Amino acid sequence: MNTSMKALQWHGPRDIRLTRIAMPSPGPDDVLIEVAYCGICGSDLHEYDNGPHAIPIVTPHVLSGRIAPLTLGHEFCGTVREVGANVRGLSVGERVGVEPEYRCSRCRYCQIGDYNLCNSMGFAGLMGDGGMAEYVVTPAYMLHRLPDSVPFVQAAVLEPAAVALHALRRSALRINGTCAVFGLGPIGILLVMMARLQGASSIVAVDVSPERLAAAARLGATDVIDARSVSAGEIASMVRAMTGGGVDVSFEAAGLQETFEGALQSLRKGGETLMVGLMQRAGFDAFRVVNDELSIRSSVGYRHVYPDLIRLVEAGAIDLSAIVTKTVSLERAVVDGFDVLTRDKRQIKVLVVPSGAEWRKRMGA
Amino acid sequence: MNTSMKALQWHGPRDIRLTRIAMPSPGPDDVLIEVAYCGICGSDLHEYDNGPHAIPIVTPHVLSGRIAPLTLGHEFCGTVREVGANVRGLSVGERVGVEPEYRCSRCRYCQIGDYNLCNSMGFAGLMGDGGMAEYVVTPAYMLHRLPDSVPFVQAAVLEPAAVALHALRRSALRINGTCAVFGLGPIGILLVMMARLQGASSIVAVDVSPERLAAAARLGATDVIDARSVSAGEIASMVRAMTGGGVDVSFEAAGLQETFEGALQSLRKGGETLMVGLMQRAGFDAFRVVNDELSIRSSVGYRHVYPDLIRLVEAGAIDLSAIVTKTVSLERAVVDGFDVLTRDKRQIKVLVVPSGAEWRKRMGA
Repeated sequence: MNTSMKALQWHGPRDIRLTRIAMPSPGPDDVLIEVAYCGICGSDLHEYDNGPHAIPIVTPHVLSGRIAPLTLGHEFCGTVREVGANVRGLSVGERVGVEPEYRCSRCRYCQIGDYNLCNSMGFAGLMGDGGMAEYVVTPAYMLHRLPDSVPFVQAAVLEPAAVALHALRRSALRINGTCAVFGLGPIGILLVMMARLQGASSIVAVDVSPERLAAAARLGATDVIDARSVSAGEIASMVRAMTGGGVDVSFEAAGLQETFEGALQSLRKGGETLMVGLMQRAGFDAFRVVNDELSIRSSVGYRHVYPDLIRLVEAGAIDLSAIVTKTVSLERAVVDGFDVLTRDKRQIKVLVVPSGAEWRKRMGA
Repeated sequence: MNTSMKALQWHGPRDIRLTRIAMPSPGPDDVLIEVAYCGICGSDLHEYDNGPHAIPIVTPHVLSGRIAPLTLGHEFCGTVREVGANVRGLSVGERVGVEPEYRCSRCRYCQIGDYNLCNSMGFAGLMGDGGMAEYVVTPAYMLHRLPDSVPFVQAAVLEPAAVALHALRRSALRINGTCAVFGLGPIGILLVMMARLQGASSIVAVDVSPERLAAAARLGATDVIDARSVSAGEIASMVRAMTGGGVDVSFEAAGLQETFEGALQSLRKGGETLMVGLMQRAGFDAFRVVNDELSIRSSVGYRHVYPDLIRLVEAGAIDLSAIVTKTVSLERAVVDGFDVLTRDKRQIKVLVVPSGAEWRKRMGA
């Protein structure tokens, strides 16, 4: 076994370094994984651009015990290479998807199964080492075995797909219902795919990028609205016209006051806006919300959705690789991944391939 | 039968007139009621103070066909005195409670039973003649027969109690759950009573009036917070301390940005604020709402709750007259009712007795 490995580590804003670090060794409840893919998430971009936001720099995270510098990346999958003494049900050589939420299993939220609200919640790849490295050690509870028919390129998208599926499950969207998705980043596009799977009759996709609107239309949107130079109110009027008076559910997946406003205004009476994007403060027309009995609900992370997602992929009901627009090597991850994602809205999901050997094989070298 | 009657009619802001008008006559689907009591609602005060808000002054309401001037009062009950030709199941002399929402029964909302969201929704007493008169004609569908054991003084409070029960039913409050009620007007006090009936383990009542806090404590609140000279954040800290980390549900029943903020901040993770008070715009910390998966829901009017309420009163499970602090004659309704309610926060619910004969009997004259 190697004694060192390559890892992409966050040291500070605009300071992500590809370095060689010591090969990690799993504790008794941990597993060592050889990473196949690690996706780049919007929150990774925020940490890169103007972090730290979630990355601890003073007080170590209570569950991971870690502090920056640490390895980025929470959307990863790979192969089990070493198993801690206490770990049952996982063997060397098995392929796994990673549900990267740390949890204490003891607080009131963990006790009722709402472990995404755990008082000590954190993410591998933000509060502890993540998947932008050749190898990573994670707690065994984060791992889900992958059937042979689920390829790594789809397993790498399980994490954002889990965000979308959890949001959809928390929403009031039902079979033959109507919805609108505001913001077609990876989560928005995955919400379009999930809404289709849920049997929605109308799925209106709203964004400012023609490429993303085209992708949404290809992946399940029944209508698209190009939001460039159109106000929130005008978009809402269009949505209402398209859906006979407004949608049952609108998803706010952009994290902007304007899209939140448009999402609320697009609802029928009794409808619900599900917030999944992050923003600071938000304002709304409370008079209409009360008089029309609207709901504003929210969704963060996920719980209990990985097994279902894996089965959906296995059954061929959904192809998560549909949102992958690019793969890059660990060496080129910042330049061809982080930097490109920041400026090129045609890119939806970029995957990093940490293994040099694997990357060379793909390149045919 | 008389050919004219006394009615308290809204002509404009600060212009409510006690006048004699022609005795109304029921159409084929209507019923003539001799009014026993009519409560004064906060929305009546708003119409009096700086209306019109809901009262039509240009376009007649689509279902009532009415426009100002019209008789105020939507919280009323009385005795059936005449029945239209098409009306089945109601007889002269029967005592009735009134559910004063106009509805079309044909729109998509009426069709699914959400008739409080009816596209033509309105209230008798705001969009048509109400109960501050000796007699009133209402559509028969608004009426609920009262058992002998339900006295008029409780039946007059059915309407605000319906607002509270509908709000409670829409909320996530469950047996042994925890809640906070912000704003102890009639709806807030009734919410305290309903939450107790629902088996809540903690009911924190928040207001600026010592008398209303005392009433809440008497009627079911487990804790009270005097909000005078305390910030929303401090109140939220107190609620969290009282309830081991925050309540499951907080009710916003004051219609103020500050109470809305306090209500949201008082929640545990995964909790819900139920807005029942009316305000214009509202703002909130969206970052916390999403990260803690909080919900903001709302409630307007009521649907399907009158039969249950009447049964609760009949069973002695709740005494709606507990919130009645004063009764006044129709002649003194403005001076001793509207004006007093505006300035004296010790008053919770004031009932008007429209019948001169009944009033003289009560006064022992």
